[in-house]
Amino acid sequence: MADSEMYAVSILCDDCQGALRDISDIMSRHGARIMTVSASVVAHGDKKGLSEIYLEFRLEDGSSENRVAALFSELKGLSSVISVDTYQPLLRIFGKRVIIIGGGAQVAQVAMGAVNEADRHNIRGEKISVDTIPIVGEADLAATIDAVCRLPRVSILVLAGSLMGGEITNSVDRVRSMGIPVISLNMAGSVAEHADLVVTDPIQAGVFAVMHISEKGVFDIKRVRGRVF
Amino acid sequence: MADSEMYAVSILCDDCQGALRDISDIMSRHGARIMTVSASVVAHGDKKGLSEIYLEFRLEDGSSENRVAALFSELKGLSSVISVDTYQPLLRIFGKRVIIIGGGAQVAQVAMGAVNEADRHNIRGEKISVDTIPIVGEADLAATIDAVCRLPRVSILVLAGSLMGGEITNSVDRVRSMGIPVISLNMAGSVAEHADLVVTDPIQAGVFAVMHISEKGVFDIKRVRGRVF
Repeated sequence: MADSEMYAVSILCDDCQGALRDISDIMSRHGARIMTVSASVVAHGDKKGLSEIYLEFRLEDGSSENRVAALFSELKGLSSVISVDTYQPLLRIFGKRVIIIGGGAQVAQVAMGAVNEADRHNIRGEKISVDTIPIVGEADLAATIDAVCRLPRVSILVLAGSLMGGEITNSVDRVRSMGIPVISLNMAGSVAEHADLVVTDPIQAGVFAVMHISEKGVFDIKRVRGRVF
Repeated sequence: MADSEMYAVSILCDDCQGALRDISDIMSRHGARIMTVSASVVAHGDKKGLSEIYLEFRLEDGSSENRVAALFSELKGLSSVISVDTYQPLLRIFGKRVIIIGGGAQVAQVAMGAVNEADRHNIRGEKISVDTIPIVGEADLAATIDAVCRLPRVSILVLAGSLMGGEITNSVDRVRSMGIPVISLNMAGSVAEHADLVVTDPIQAGVFAVMHISEKGVFDIKRVRGRVF
């Protein structure tokens, strides 16, 4: 389904649990496929103590103004709902995500390459984010890499370090099996052998990552899979 | 509620819409407060075509092994559910988030300061992520800053640029009213006057941001509010 059919709403309500069930029910009846829901209690300001439910959804079988209006009208009619506000979906704001994980010094360098390359693409209308976490140790790294599969909008993973192997390599295999390509810095350990691409210069690793997920770039990681730069 | 009471599960099912409604209902009856749900169709691997529903929730009125087991048992009993797997919540993996927004060259420098400082904290057991998007232009910047309120786990925002004002300043006020502190680089335009802290050196701006959200650091942005470094 095209991105143009995605909608985002924020629903302010005073009974989060009940509202979530009722909203799921209404969405289901209107043929709206919920992609993301997050619920939180407003902690500050004049809405403090109320619940905010943020939803992103697509309409199955095509969108129309009338269908959206009918859906919103029914949502607003719920007794616990105070207001329904529409937004741009987060994909249209923050776009595709490059995730960079590893040791701080190298993560920062890969981020520099990726942010500067993303800047050049975003200026021309794309939306690419560069998200990082400096983390070390086999168990923590493996758990963090596995969790990348549960983050929204991830398009590519870059591993920035000097030694990664063991359980981390199994996590890399799992991420790749979910369709997320992996770039590894040229490093010790078995991770590099399991990556789609190995890059020695961290700045270039960041640039490659953004080039791959850009819709305007001509670079495709599949065409250089297994190579070392 | 303490972080220790948060649970995360991934539910594999073959009827996402129906399952989401049934899961909301079961969660509600078991006193589970859903914080985040995301639903997606598995695009790769041997589960291709099935739906995956990822939930994070807290149990109201305290957790117990028995309550969790009863909840999972009922979830597994749904006819559309194939498997229920438990995970660590994303807050425990990726932790608190520093968000950096602005022009590429400066975003990259702030990120370098923040990633290196986060590395020092994460090595000692904290979890701090540094997430960025290079974006320019008044309308795009304002929309992106507003959307920060809809991202999970955001603890602080850093604005990295040389000129920000107009509609962007209103967005900054809205982010601060939601309880998210804002650090601005020392720049032209009205944004700096509306920030909690103004910092000239981008590396230091990133370090300050991480120091503020760290549980181990002694720095508190409230104690230097309105100052320019």
